[in-house]
Amino acid sequence: MKKTTLCVLMGLCLLFFSTAVFAAEKLEKIKASETAVVLIEFQNEMLKPGGKNYEWLKPVVDKNNVLANAVDLVAKAREKGITIMHVPIWYATDVCEVGKAYGVGGYVKSVGAFKKNTWNTKIVDELTPVKGDVIIEGKRAPDAFGSTNLDFVLRAMGIKNIAIAGFVTNICVESTMRSAYERGYNVFTMTDVTAAGSQAVQDFTVKENFPNFSHPLTHDEFLLLVQ
Amino acid sequence: MKKTTLCVLMGLCLLFFSTAVFAAEKLEKIKASETAVVLIEFQNEMLKPGGKNYEWLKPVVDKNNVLANAVDLVAKAREKGITIMHVPIWYATDVCEVGKAYGVGGYVKSVGAFKKNTWNTKIVDELTPVKGDVIIEGKRAPDAFGSTNLDFVLRAMGIKNIAIAGFVTNICVESTMRSAYERGYNVFTMTDVTAAGSQAVQDFTVKENFPNFSHPLTHDEFLLLVQ
Amino acid sequence: MKKTTLCVLMGLCLLFFSTAVFAAEKLEKIKASETAVVLIEFQNEMLKPGGKNYEWLKPVVDKNNVLANAVDLVAKAREKGITIMHVPIWYATDVCEVGKAYGVGGYVKSVGAFKKNTWNTKIVDELTPVKGDVIIEGKRAPDAFGSTNLDFVLRAMGIKNIAIAGFVTNICVESTMRSAYERGYNVFTMTDVTAAGSQAVQDFTVKENFPNFSHPLTHDEFLLLVQ
Amino acid sequence: MKKTTLCVLMGLCLLFFSTAVFAAEKLEKIKASETAVVLIEFQNEMLKPGGKNYEWLKPVVDKNNVLANAVDLVAKAREKGITIMHVPIWYATDVCEVGKAYGVGGYVKSVGAFKKNTWNTKIVDELTPVKGDVIIEGKRAPDAFGSTNLDFVLRAMGIKNIAIAGFVTNICVESTMRSAYERGYNVFTMTDVTAAGSQAVQDFTVKENFPNFSHPLTHDEFLLLVQ
Repeated sequence: MKKTTLCVLMGLCLLFFSTAVFAAEKLEKIKASETAVVLIEFQNEMLKPGGKNYEWLKPVVDKNNVLANAVDLVAKAREKGITIMHVPIWYATDVCEVGKAYGVGGYVKSVGAFKKNTWNTKIVDELTPVKGDVIIEGKRAPDAFGSTNLDFVLRAMGIKNIAIAGFVTNICVESTMRSAYERGYNVFTMTDVTAAGSQAVQDFTVKENFPNFSHPLTHDEFLLLVQ
Repeated sequence: MKKTTLCVLMGLCLLFFSTAVFAAEKLEKIKASETAVVLIEFQNEMLKPGGKNYEWLKPVVDKNNVLANAVDLVAKAREKGITIMHVPIWYATDVCEVGKAYGVGGYVKSVGAFKKNTWNTKIVDELTPVKGDVIIEGKRAPDAFGSTNLDFVLRAMGIKNIAIAGFVTNICVESTMRSAYERGYNVFTMTDVTAAGSQAVQDFTVKENFPNFSHPLTHDEFLLLVQ
Repeated sequence: MKKTTLCVLMGLCLLFFSTAVFAAEKLEKIKASETAVVLIEFQNEMLKPGGKNYEWLKPVVDKNNVLANAVDLVAKAREKGITIMHVPIWYATDVCEVGKAYGVGGYVKSVGAFKKNTWNTKIVDELTPVKGDVIIEGKRAPDAFGSTNLDFVLRAMGIKNIAIAGFVTNICVESTMRSAYERGYNVFTMTDVTAAGSQAVQDFTVKENFPNFSHPLTHDEFLLLVQ
Repeated sequence: MKKTTLCVLMGLCLLFFSTAVFAAEKLEKIKASETAVVLIEFQNEMLKPGGKNYEWLKPVVDKNNVLANAVDLVAKAREKGITIMHVPIWYATDVCEVGKAYGVGGYVKSVGAFKKNTWNTKIVDELTPVKGDVIIEGKRAPDAFGSTNLDFVLRAMGIKNIAIAGFVTNICVESTMRSAYERGYNVFTMTDVTAAGSQAVQDFTVKENFPNFSHPLTHDEFLLLVQ
């Protein structure tokens, strides 16, 4: 009985891996030196009990094993020589930078999220930046390009391919993906290293919007592409 | 019997109008001189038989009466002194500008859509630009800001509020909305003057993504806000 | 005799002030709440003995009394309710972000200037930011807009008028002025709160390039415009 | 006697060429497929009798043989497989897009220069675009990147190196050079295919500002670098 279970599991594994390889093989191989993993808002506010968005994201984060996948992605990417870029968000205490009181910014203002120099905006311990990583400065809005030096640094370093991971799938991740596509990057979205406020929104975004502006892949599929 | 029907209809009308007014009244009034309607890709390729995206968009365009609503929006906006901006898309014959062969650009390349100086990229007769309208130049990608002079012209004219209408709801319209929000505009999305490839995608986008980056309104609700 | 001298001096003073007032009166008055002073690189690297650009800038800084003028501008601007924005520059220790080894960036790389978290990149004590000031993050290149959240914050705060001060007149100050003009701001350049590597370059830039993209004024003339 | 003159001339030629080669050899060779020549405002308004800026630019245009050099640059660049990009400027008849009435835009507004669909904004006959050239759309302001699809098209085509030529040396050419440098391009400025309003301004700009943001070269020196 145990044998049968094992066989079925192995069969599923093989099926999974061959699917992954197949999906990945349609895409061109890319060079590690021209590639970056862009980590959006892996901060306590998002991922740890007490964080203002923790409860909201928890169901999808847990179900898809997002934090463990992120740790795995980053470790293997560093080994391959891919640059890791951290893009945290924060606001000055008085949140003067948020402006208009509607949409995502209005929400941030109303709950007082992402205050600078607090526990909340610290990057989670599991992903503490190491020497060689790049910290992108300036993020005050959904698009990781719009208010930061991300584009400048990517160009200066000669990076052409970016793999986007983080939160929230249909908010910051999606805005960043759209902006990266528009700027001519070869864009990959990490389907198992992103999370939305519900699985329905996660699934819709991955299925309907990711393919229009990126190559949606699991982090394992993505890593197979990098030489 | 006819009386009853009339009463019900009047009741529904009142209900509709009071809802609209209520929704609109929560928002601040805006000045016509600081407001623009941004029309994205009202071109034959999208809206007329023979256009390469006509069949794809037809169900939602028809169901929501999008072209008639656009004509109504533009006529009433002009009367109020709101600036009308047309943002057509086109590519040189050899489509050299599209670049990467994936996502939306890959689709455009593969079907040869939006060729410059053809019937396909002509703005539909119903919305032919008139004196006083502005034609935005340069669009080669989803975001109406990314490759055009839209932001420059809006700033030069002192415009703060923009109402976005056009195609495709979850592609160009959504990218433009996200980019406009990021740039600090007071953004309105016209729920009845936009269309996606299916009603399900239209509904999801309006419900889940529009409110994060804009005030989603019908064109009648929007016009009520403008002084 | 002393009386005569005094009279002449008073006459010159009057002449000077009336000229200033005259120059300023041709321009429209502006609102403090819509105005920011943008301070570019008032850091030890530029202004204090031991800073890598100190000797280079010293002659013009001293001759034009730039640091004292900056302190005066900032104090009076704060009193009037004008927002003060600090735009420091820095690089990670390994200067990975600089990219190409030519031009201004090549110079920075070769001398190892502006290293993050050092005395060199600290804002000078005379201009330490206070509560209410905004620190603009991300600057890695000459234009204070190009790699920062400056444009985002200005838009979010509804600021239309900016007065640019700092270093170097024909490098970062000029790039920022050109970029601000392009983005539709009402741009003022502070002729007595900027310094170049020589008086000849300072004079040429103020005379030939500032008027094409800004209103060049002394800081006193600028302050007279703000209500 | 004639022989002596010939010898002297040959000597000067050799000297010139060896200098050019020397200057060029310090720089890395570049690939034609990754290179574009960006032609700024080679329009009748600038270069032909009757054009509003003709008289102003004539002395430097004539002295430096700018139009003949441009024709030579373009012909040889096309032969090598370098992409030619034309960046004309124009405004709608009512010049609504210019905005603020100061600086360069104020001048354009006051003299009514660069009106769309007139002889004035036509590209000069000597440089009429041919198949394979790219026309950049949208230019309404000095920087050829700020209000156009230039950056989008360069990225989409994978172009890394740009050689900037045209008018006016310290206005549009310089703003474009600064913006290109900021965006990470390998920037070349054509010292003998640009013109300012006076030789003094031309010389200052080439000597003091071009080297901070580009490799200033004659068009012959530039062509030697391209493989």
